Amino acid sequence: ERIRDLGIEIGVLPTGTLNSITDVAGVLVGHTTLVKGDSVHTGVTAILPHSGNIFQQKVPAAIYVGNGFGKLAGITQVNELGNIETPIILTNTLSVATAMNAVIGYTLNQAGNENVQSVNAVVGETNDGYLNDIRGRHINEEDVLKAIENASVGPVKEGNAGAGSGTVAFGFKGGIGTASRKLPESLGGYTLGVIVQSNFGGVLQIAGVPVGKELKQFSFSNKLLNNVDGSCMIVVATDAPLDHRNLERLAKRAFLGIAKTGGIVSNGSGDYIIAFSTAEANRIPYSTRDNLLKQEVVPNDQMSPLFMAAIEATEEAILNSLFMAEAVKGKPGRNIEALPLDKILPILKKNGVIKD
Amino acid sequence: ERIRDLGIEIGVLPTGTLNSITDVAGVLVGHTTLVKGDSVHTGVTAILPHSGNIFQQKVPAAIYVGNGFGKLAGITQVNELGNIETPIILTNTLSVATAMNAVIGYTLNQAGNENVQSVNAVVGETNDGYLNDIRGRHINEEDVLKAIENASVGPVKEGNAGAGSGTVAFGFKGGIGTASRKLPESLGGYTLGVIVQSNFGGVLQIAGVPVGKELKQFSFSNKLLNNVDGSCMIVVATDAPLDHRNLERLAKRAFLGIAKTGGIVSNGSGDYIIAFSTAEANRIPYSTRDNLLKQEVVPNDQMSPLFMAAIEATEEAILNSLFMAEAVKGKPGRNIEALPLDKILPILKKNGVIKD
Amino acid sequence: ERIRDLGIEIGVLPTGTLNSITDVAGVLVGHTTLVKGDSVHTGVTAILPHSGNIFQQKVPAAIYVGNGFGKLAGITQVNELGNIETPIILTNTLSVATAMNAVIGYTLNQAGNENVQSVNAVVGETNDGYLNDIRGRHINEEDVLKAIENASVGPVKEGNAGAGSGTVAFGFKGGIGTASRKLPESLGGYTLGVIVQSNFGGVLQIAGVPVGKELKQFSFSNKLLNNVDGSCMIVVATDAPLDHRNLERLAKRAFLGIAKTGGIVSNGSGDYIIAFSTAEANRIPYSTRDNLLKQEVVPNDQMSPLFMAAIEATEEAILNSLFMAEAVKGKPGRNIEALPLDKILPILKKNGVIKD
Amino acid sequence: ERIRDLGIEIGVLPTGTLNSITDVAGVLVGHTTLVKGDSVHTGVTAILPHSGNIFQQKVPAAIYVGNGFGKLAGITQVNELGNIETPIILTNTLSVATAMNAVIGYTLNQAGNENVQSVNAVVGETNDGYLNDIRGRHINEEDVLKAIENASVGPVKEGNAGAGSGTVAFGFKGGIGTASRKLPESLGGYTLGVIVQSNFGGVLQIAGVPVGKELKQFSFSNKLLNNVDGSCMIVVATDAPLDHRNLERLAKRAFLGIAKTGGIVSNGSGDYIIAFSTAEANRIPYSTRDNLLKQEVVPNDQMSPLFMAAIEATEEAILNSLFMAEAVKGKPGRNIEALPLDKILPILKKNGVIKD
Repeated sequence: ERIRDLGIEIGVLPTGTLNSITDVAGVLVGHTTLVKGDSVHTGVTAILPHSGNIFQQKVPAAIYVGNGFGKLAGITQVNELGNIETPIILTNTLSVATAMNAVIGYTLNQAGNENVQSVNAVVGETNDGYLNDIRGRHINEEDVLKAIENASVGPVKEGNAGAGSGTVAFGFKGGIGTASRKLPESLGGYTLGVIVQSNFGGVLQIAGVPVGKELKQFSFSNKLLNNVDGSCMIVVATDAPLDHRNLERLAKRAFLGIAKTGGIVSNGSGDYIIAFSTAEANRIPYSTRDNLLKQEVVPNDQMSPLFMAAIEATEEAILNSLFMAEAVKGKPGRNIEALPLDKILPILKKNGVIKD
Repeated sequence: ERIRDLGIEIGVLPTGTLNSITDVAGVLVGHTTLVKGDSVHTGVTAILPHSGNIFQQKVPAAIYVGNGFGKLAGITQVNELGNIETPIILTNTLSVATAMNAVIGYTLNQAGNENVQSVNAVVGETNDGYLNDIRGRHINEEDVLKAIENASVGPVKEGNAGAGSGTVAFGFKGGIGTASRKLPESLGGYTLGVIVQSNFGGVLQIAGVPVGKELKQFSFSNKLLNNVDGSCMIVVATDAPLDHRNLERLAKRAFLGIAKTGGIVSNGSGDYIIAFSTAEANRIPYSTRDNLLKQEVVPNDQMSPLFMAAIEATEEAILNSLFMAEAVKGKPGRNIEALPLDKILPILKKNGVIKD
Repeated sequence: ERIRDLGIEIGVLPTGTLNSITDVAGVLVGHTTLVKGDSVHTGVTAILPHSGNIFQQKVPAAIYVGNGFGKLAGITQVNELGNIETPIILTNTLSVATAMNAVIGYTLNQAGNENVQSVNAVVGETNDGYLNDIRGRHINEEDVLKAIENASVGPVKEGNAGAGSGTVAFGFKGGIGTASRKLPESLGGYTLGVIVQSNFGGVLQIAGVPVGKELKQFSFSNKLLNNVDGSCMIVVATDAPLDHRNLERLAKRAFLGIAKTGGIVSNGSGDYIIAFSTAEANRIPYSTRDNLLKQEVVPNDQMSPLFMAAIEATEEAILNSLFMAEAVKGKPGRNIEALPLDKILPILKKNGVIKD
Repeated sequence: ERIRDLGIEIGVLPTGTLNSITDVAGVLVGHTTLVKGDSVHTGVTAILPHSGNIFQQKVPAAIYVGNGFGKLAGITQVNELGNIETPIILTNTLSVATAMNAVIGYTLNQAGNENVQSVNAVVGETNDGYLNDIRGRHINEEDVLKAIENASVGPVKEGNAGAGSGTVAFGFKGGIGTASRKLPESLGGYTLGVIVQSNFGGVLQIAGVPVGKELKQFSFSNKLLNNVDGSCMIVVATDAPLDHRNLERLAKRAFLGIAKTGGIVSNGSGDYIIAFSTAEANRIPYSTRDNLLKQEVVPNDQMSPLFMAAIEATEEAILNSLFMAEAVKGKPGRNIEALPLDKILPILKKNGVIKD
C-alpha cells in the first residue's frame, strides 16, 4: 500500500488527484520491467514531459547534481540551453549508453526530425548490481523503446517496476515511487509531481520517525549496511511556468527531500534531480522563426510554495517507493526484504504518525 | 536547555565532549552581543579555525551556496584557492561590509602581515530586521574586533548571542546553536563540529516530529508566517584532513541538515555553508618556499561517515539555537516568543522522542 | 589616443557611436579619481544600468568568475536571483567593503526605499597596490557616492581614471577602457558595450601582434615581470533582452577577450565579468503585484553574434585602457610607464596592423 | 606540415620533444579512422593517461565546460570524485553512447576488474555531420576498442585522423591537432600536452593574424558561414602533480586557447576541456587499504606558468589540426577544402609571422 493508504501523511500541502507525477497534466510515464530467473532484476522507466514531439517542442529544464557519483547523460546541454529535448530515461548504471542509443534512434526516427543530426538524450541511473547481474547488461534498446511506448498518463506502477526492479534502499527493497502536491490557488494553484528511483542508504526516517535507528538497521551500524552507496534519481515536473534558473532552484529543494527520509547522500551515491516545466507557452521550438521568445515566468518571490511542494513530494515519493516494493530473491545469496511492516507500523503508531 | 538535556537525541552518532564546534581542537568562537533598548538586537559571532596567524597559515576550506539570497563575502576566493585566510564573521545583512573592513584591518595589523596587500575576509549574515533596527546599522568595526578578541575554546554561548541576537526561526526566536559529532575510531575517529545562525522558516520538525504542523504554525499557514525568508548561516569545522573538494561535499551535507528541521530554503533565504579543516599538516602557508605541498587527505570512499556527521550536527545545532533562545521584545510592535516548551514537550513525549 | 584613432581595428563587427559602454542606451558611468602625492593613486568607477531607482527596477544580470582570486561582492545573490539591484562599483581590493557600505547607504536613502532592509551591493576590484598605498585605504564612502553622482551618459574617461587610477597591465600603466559593438539588423541590431579595469599580466598582444614578446617584456621573462597577478574587472551591458542564463553565457565570452590581449588569467588574478541587460520590458520590479512576469528573450540560437561582439568589445576595451593610460610615479621606487608608442607603433606598422 | 615546420611560432614557452600530448610521459593516443565512399568520414580517438589498468589506478582529473551544447559523457563523476578511471574517447556526436558501451566493456573485461559494477566512461564528441552521414551511426564498439588498442606513445597522427576525420573549423577542414610545452626548471620543469578535435567557427586567427578577416571568410560574413556551430574537444595532460581543483583551473585556461585562434564559442558549439595529471604518486587506487592518501601538489601560486602553457599549447594544437588536415569530398554536395596555404602563407609573411 502507498503510505497515505496506511494513514501516513507527509507535510502540510494537499496532494494532486493521483498523488503522482502524472497529476501534472500531459506528463507520461512508462516502464519496462526485466526479471529473468533470480539473476536479472532490472528495467527501464521513461518519463515524457508531453505527448508531442519533444525535440521539436523542447521544455524548460534543469538538472541539479546532489552527488555526482553517477553516469547521468545529458546534463551539460540541459543546463547550458535550459531545456530538455527527449524523453527522460531511468535505468541501471551500466545501461545508460544503451538507453542513450535507443533515445537517439527514437528521436531521429520521429516524423519531423528527418534532418536532425544532434540529440541530447537524458538518461539517469542507479546501480542495481546487488540483486541484478548488472555486468550482464541485460537491457537492450528494445526495452528502452518499449518503456517509451508504454508511457501513459494515469496511475504509475511503483515499487519493483521498471528501473526500480532491482534497487535497494536503507537495506530494504526500494524502487519506483511517486507523489504530487497541488498548491492552493492563493499560492499559485500549480501542480508539482515527483518520481524517484530509490537505491540509497542512511538512517531510514518515516514521517520523521527514526525507524532505521529503532530497528538498529542503518548505515555503519554493522558491516552489512556499511555499503550505503547506491543512488537516488529524482524527476520533478510542474505546470508552473518556470525558466531554467528557477527550475534549478526547484531541483535543489527536491534534493532536500532525500534528507527527510534519512538519506545521507553518501560518497558513492549518484543523486541527481531533473526538473522541467510543462507550461505550454514556454516551450522552446526547435525551429524558431521569431527573433524573440515570449515567456511568462513565476517571479522569484513566489517560488517558495513550490519549493515546499518539491521537498514534500520527494519525501513522499521515496517512502512510496519503499512501501510499494516487494521482497526480491536476487543473485545467488542476495535476497532483499520488503519493509517489515509488522515491525514498522507499530513503531509508527506508537509515535503518533499513524493514528489509531 | 540544550535539546540533549531535555532527552532529545538526534541521529545515531555520538557527540563530542561539549557537543560544540569547539570540540574540534583549536577552533575558537567569540561573540559581541548588541542590545540597546527595544530596537537594537544584533551582534557579531567570530569563528577562528586556529589561534595562530590565519593569513600566514591558511586552512583548507570550501563554501557551498544553499540559496544565494545573501550577502556573504569571500566566497569566490575561498572556492578558487581552496582556503580561508581570516576569521569567519557572522553578523546582520547590512553590516557585512563593516565586518569586512574590521577583518581587513585586523589582518593588516597582525604581526607578520606588514606587507600584505590583499585580504579575503569571509563574512556571512542573516537578516535580523524583524526585531532589530537593521537600517540603523548599529554594528561598528570595534564590535567585530571584540568578537574576534573574545574568541575562545570551550563552551559556546547559544541562543540570543552574538549574530543570533535578533534572529527568528520558524516564527520563534532563533539564534546561535552548536553541536558536534565524534566518529568511532573504526570510521576514522574524526571530530566534526557545526555552528549555526538560524533565521529561517518552514515547518518546524524536532527530532522528526512535525511540531510546526501540530501547532498550526508554519510557513504559508497564515499571513503572519507567509514571510518565510531569513537565512541560515552554517559553519562546519573538522579535524579530518580534507581538501577543498571534499570540504565542499561536506558542506553540501550540512545543507541537508536544514531540511531535517523543517526548513524549506525559501526564495529569500540566504543559506550558506562554510566548511574548513583544521588538520595542521594541510595548512597552506602564505609564503611557500617549497615547490610542492605535501598533504594527507581522506579518500573519497571514507567520506560517508563524515557526511552523516555533518547532517546530524547541523540538525542538532539548529535545534539548540531554538531551544536556547529567549523571547525578545524588539522594534515597536515586534515581539518574538521563545519556543513554547509547555506545548512542545508534551508533543515530543507523546511522539516518543522524549522518553518518560 | 584610443586604438581606432591610431588605425588599429579589432574584429569584424562595427562599433557603436561612441565605441563605449554608454552606447547602450541608458547606461551611465562616473569616476572618482584619487591622486595625492606619489603614494595615492586609486579611485572609484560606478556603472549604472539605468538612471532610475535600480533597487525598485532591477535588471537581469549574471556574474561569471574567470578566476576567483578577488573580493568581488554580491555574486551569489546576482546569480541566484538573476538580477542586479544597485549601481556596480569598481575600486581597489581593500576598499570593497567601504564601497559596499556606500552603496547600501545610497540605496537605503533613495526615495521609495524607505522600508528596504536588504541590499545586494555589487562591487568589484583590482589591486592597485604596486603604485598605490593600498594599505592606507584612502577611499571613503563619499568618494564612492561621488562616482555614482558623477555618472552620466556620453563619452567615458579612460586610462588613469576612477578605479583605473593606479592599475598596471602587462608591466605598463593600465586602467579604465571601454568599447562597444552594434550588431547589424540582420543579426538582431543590438548594442553591446564593455568597460574594463585592467590590471593583469601575460604576453601583450595588440590586434594579434605579440608586442610583449617582441619587446621581450612578458610574464616570466624576467624577475620584474614574474608577478603577473593583478586582476581584470569587466562589465558588459547590452540592450538585447537576455535572461540570466544567456547573460552568464555572454559574460563567459567576454572572459575570452582577456586572452586575445595576451592575458593568461594568472593564479593571483581576480577576473570577473558582470553582464546585464537594459531591456526595459524585462526589468524586475521589487514589488510585484502580478503573479507572472512577462518577458521577451533572445533565443539561444541567436546568441552567437552577441558572443562575438562581447569578445571583440572586451579585447578593444582592454587595449583602449592601455593606450589611454599615462605614466605614473607611484609609491617610492615604483614608477610605471605608459605603453611605449615609439616602439610599439613601428611594430604594428611592420605587422600590417596599422596601414601606412 | 605542422605550423612550426612552416616557421610559425606560438607563444613564448618551449615545446616538448615531439610537440605533442605524448610528450607527457606515459600518455598514449590511438585512432580509428572511418572513411567509406564519400558519405562516411568519421572516427574515434582514444587518449590513455597511462598504460596500466586505469580503473584500478585512477588519475586526478577535471572537466571544464566551455559551452555545454554537447553530449560529453562522464563529467559529473569526474568532477565529484576528482578523477578519471577509463580511457578518454573522442568521436562524433551520435556515437557517444556506442563509445561508452565499448569503454564499459573494455573496463569490465580488464584483468583485475572482475567485480567491478560501475564504470564512468569519459567520452567527448564533435558533430561531423556536415561531411559525414552522422545519422547512419557508422561507429561500432569494435572501432572504439581498436582505437584503444592502437594507442601508443610517440608521434600522433593529426588532421583527418580518428575523431577528426570529418570535422570542419572556420569553414576549412579541421581535425585532430596536438602540441606541448615544457616549462623551464625554474618554473617547475613540468611538461603539458594538449590534443584537440577542432570543429568550430569564428574569425580564424593564425599567430594573431586575422586571416579569416583578410580572406573575408568568417562567421556571419555570409550565409555559408552563418552556421558557426560545431564544437571543440580539448584534452590536457600534464606530469605536474595537480589535484582536481587546480586541474579544473588549468582546463579553464585551455578554453582561452580557443579564443586565440579566433573561435567565438558559439551557441551550438560543445566546448569541453578534460585535464588530468599523470603524476604517479597521486594516482587514486580503486581499492584503498590506507585511511589517508598521501599527495604532493603544486601550490596555487606556482600554477601560472602551467596556465600559460595550457593556453599556448591549445592554440598551437588547434592550428596544427587545421594545417595538417586535407580537403574532403563528403556527403553529396558537401566538400570542404583544406586551409588555402597559397593564400595564407603570403599573408603570414606580410604580417611578419613567417620570416623570410
